[in-house]
Amino acid sequence: MNRRMILRMIGLALLMEAGLMLLPFVAGLCYRERPLAFLVTAGLAGLTGFCLTRLKVKTNTIYARDGFVAVTLIWVVFSAFGALPFVFSGEIPFYVDAFFETMSGFTTTGASILNNIEGLSHACLFWRSFTHWIGGMGVLVFMMAILPLSGEHSMHIMRAEVPGPVVGKLVPRAGDTAKILYMLYTGLTVAETAFLMFGGMSFFDALLHAFGTAGTGGFSTRNNSIAAFQSDYIEMVISSFLVLFAMNFNLFYFIVKGKIKTALQSEELHWYVAIILLATGAIAAGIYSLYGTLGETLKNAFFNVMTIMSTAGFCTVDYTEWPQYIQVLLVILMFIGGCAGSTGGGLKLSRVILLIKTSGADVKRTISPRCVKRVRMDGKCVPDNVLTTVGTFFFLYLFLLLGCTLVASFDGFDFTTSFTAALSCISNVGPGLSHVGPSYNFADFSTLSKVVMSVTMLAGRLEIYPLLILFMPKK
Amino acid sequence: MNRRMILRMIGLALLMEAGLMLLPFVAGLCYRERPLAFLVTAGLAGLTGFCLTRLKVKTNTIYARDGFVAVTLIWVVFSAFGALPFVFSGEIPFYVDAFFETMSGFTTTGASILNNIEGLSHACLFWRSFTHWIGGMGVLVFMMAILPLSGEHSMHIMRAEVPGPVVGKLVPRAGDTAKILYMLYTGLTVAETAFLMFGGMSFFDALLHAFGTAGTGGFSTRNNSIAAFQSDYIEMVISSFLVLFAMNFNLFYFIVKGKIKTALQSEELHWYVAIILLATGAIAAGIYSLYGTLGETLKNAFFNVMTIMSTAGFCTVDYTEWPQYIQVLLVILMFIGGCAGSTGGGLKLSRVILLIKTSGADVKRTISPRCVKRVRMDGKCVPDNVLTTVGTFFFLYLFLLLGCTLVASFDGFDFTTSFTAALSCISNVGPGLSHVGPSYNFADFSTLSKVVMSVTMLAGRLEIYPLLILFMPKK
Repeated sequence: MNRRMILRMIGLALLMEAGLMLLPFVAGLCYRERPLAFLVTAGLAGLTGFCLTRLKVKTNTIYARDGFVAVTLIWVVFSAFGALPFVFSGEIPFYVDAFFETMSGFTTTGASILNNIEGLSHACLFWRSFTHWIGGMGVLVFMMAILPLSGEHSMHIMRAEVPGPVVGKLVPRAGDTAKILYMLYTGLTVAETAFLMFGGMSFFDALLHAFGTAGTGGFSTRNNSIAAFQSDYIEMVISSFLVLFAMNFNLFYFIVKGKIKTALQSEELHWYVAIILLATGAIAAGIYSLYGTLGETLKNAFFNVMTIMSTAGFCTVDYTEWPQYIQVLLVILMFIGGCAGSTGGGLKLSRVILLIKTSGADVKRTISPRCVKRVRMDGKCVPDNVLTTVGTFFFLYLFLLLGCTLVASFDGFDFTTSFTAALSCISNVGPGLSHVGPSYNFADFSTLSKVVMSVTMLAGRLEIYPLLILFMPKK
Repeated sequence: MNRRMILRMIGLALLMEAGLMLLPFVAGLCYRERPLAFLVTAGLAGLTGFCLTRLKVKTNTIYARDGFVAVTLIWVVFSAFGALPFVFSGEIPFYVDAFFETMSGFTTTGASILNNIEGLSHACLFWRSFTHWIGGMGVLVFMMAILPLSGEHSMHIMRAEVPGPVVGKLVPRAGDTAKILYMLYTGLTVAETAFLMFGGMSFFDALLHAFGTAGTGGFSTRNNSIAAFQSDYIEMVISSFLVLFAMNFNLFYFIVKGKIKTALQSEELHWYVAIILLATGAIAAGIYSLYGTLGETLKNAFFNVMTIMSTAGFCTVDYTEWPQYIQVLLVILMFIGGCAGSTGGGLKLSRVILLIKTSGADVKRTISPRCVKRVRMDGKCVPDNVLTTVGTFFFLYLFLLLGCTLVASFDGFDFTTSFTAALSCISNVGPGLSHVGPSYNFADFSTLSKVVMSVTMLAGRLEIYPLLILFMPKK
């Protein structure tokens, strides 16, 4: 393992984080706060980063394993430093709580331990939502977009950080792909901010909610989340942008390049639209009696389908008060999550499609063993090793889910709470059911649970493999 | 598809069922009941069976598909006729309830819709528990053991009915393997009956509880299940025999043949023992304060680990009153289930082991793509197609579980109830948590839920594939 190179990369990431922390600092200054906590943390991160980048590196070559390890460690270190301003400012005094909140931010989970979000300073609110934006498209991908890393190992990094079963390079150089992704990402975020401001939000609120939407995170600036704004327009803007942010970003690239037909032919997109329509319809049928008008019913159904399926987790209503079958539907959407190559979490839709197709092919093979049935996606044969990995990923997902449920259950919550809290963490959703429903938060869990849940969120965001590799014996 | 051959096989099965129904008839007579319902049903089944076996068959050849279809249909027809005595006798007047109860019996689930079990006649009690015994080792395997079916298609049938990822023939002829399995099965059942009678049970109670243990079903003759007997000895006998019945029966064959070393080297057995010990310890730690003495604590922990992991579902205490983490542990055990080639349900331990091993190999492959790491079990390489099928099976299992949860949730029960009811059905356990915990039953579910749950139980018992093949387009 090329330890020095990994440490150097961690150093670079910390330097970048130090720079990023100046933004909440400035934001705080604008609101006449004294956000020294951010300056101090930026200093600490900058110094540590500077020292690490001074390390002499024997060789630039890194292998897949190094890439995975570097990505995992950078995310951990990023959250470890990212949590400090909350502690230094005294706004989240307990470090584990601050770490949970920051990890929840970077992994775009949006699960919070805060009972009073509105009590935070503007600087902290900014940083909290900004972590969503950084984590959404990926810390390392961001680094690749702005720093000239050697092309050789950048693919390992993209594979470790970009969600989905297969990572498609848009352009030959991974660094250029990263730039394109971040340009699209920024463009959409700016557009959403404008749309939200048009609906009467302040620039600050609009930007922060755009961060939360872009990363499909779900942190809000209000205790009542989106419900606080009491605006159908804002709800519709956010749910519509969630549709976009949970889509594969490659499609936007195709669209920008004029290949609209290619984009529209994406199989995952068809399933995505179909599931959104079906789920919205199924939920609307169950809540019509609660809201009376078709418009209000559809708006609420659509918003909640999108907030859960995109794994953002913004709230407008307490869906745990809706009929029970809707809650099971939402749990199923939590499992599925967004599309591959989006900022959404969960298993990712393309994996679910592949699992369904593999099952079909496998059942056919059972009855006619000699007939070789290939699994195809977008017209192309999917290699066997991708299919195996998708199956393995699914198993590991459930394995971690049940493991995290077990740990959470030590705190004495009912099964629904423990299970959906764990599911919410590994799928990076935010809210769950019962005592982690939209009206509650994660404050009451024990320190052990919070640590395990932080790890689970990271496992979900990095799609498990990088974390497992960290714990695997070298050999 | 060789329809006539399939119909003929169904006919044979019905003739056999008609014969089997004479046993509860005789049992009823012994207790001076007038179990005419069984005589009438036996007549109906016999007549239908006779007509079907008269069908002219053009060719004896059946393919894998026919075998799977035949097995599924035979199980459905078996339950459809098996439910009739309950209806005719008026003891379960509603047919869907009777069908649910019978399917629950044959699939060795043990979920009941009866509020007052002790109100049943001896004939019905006998039949109810006897279905466990017949279904445990397999209806078709039983048929193969007693009838001279042609060897060619018998392997298809064994593959469809015997649980586990790979079916090992003990001896070259499948029919002989079936005979050996049923001899071992009968021997153990007789032994348990004797042990239970020694503990003060009547012959009737002892035999019926032995049926329930052997099939890992869980129907009892008492409303309070095993708790009604208030005997530590009886609890220990049942939990010990559950250990045996949830083990791979091939091991017993090896032991009988003197190959004790081969039996003891089984990897699945090692995991099995390890999980039982770990789970018992973990549960004992949580309930010690409730029971005070170490003996009582261990007895309760061990009994509940075995009743859940073997997927029998007998009850002595209401474990939903135990600490929450224990309930999550029990849910995990429900997923795992018994060993392959046992009468236990669930995913089967060997599948879980293979999934863990495949995951390990896959993670290794991610970091060094050129290193081909084979998955081994008991020292032998596991073929890739078996690994794929195990992964697919796991996905379909979860898919059906969530589907059944969704249907159950229409009845308005909380998530825990719907989820664990569905899990209990697909894993053939019997009780779940919350409103399907040991103190409750399945009576309050709607007709739709009961039908879907019956199908889910059958899917669990036949391990999904045969059912899916039934619904697949021919081509």
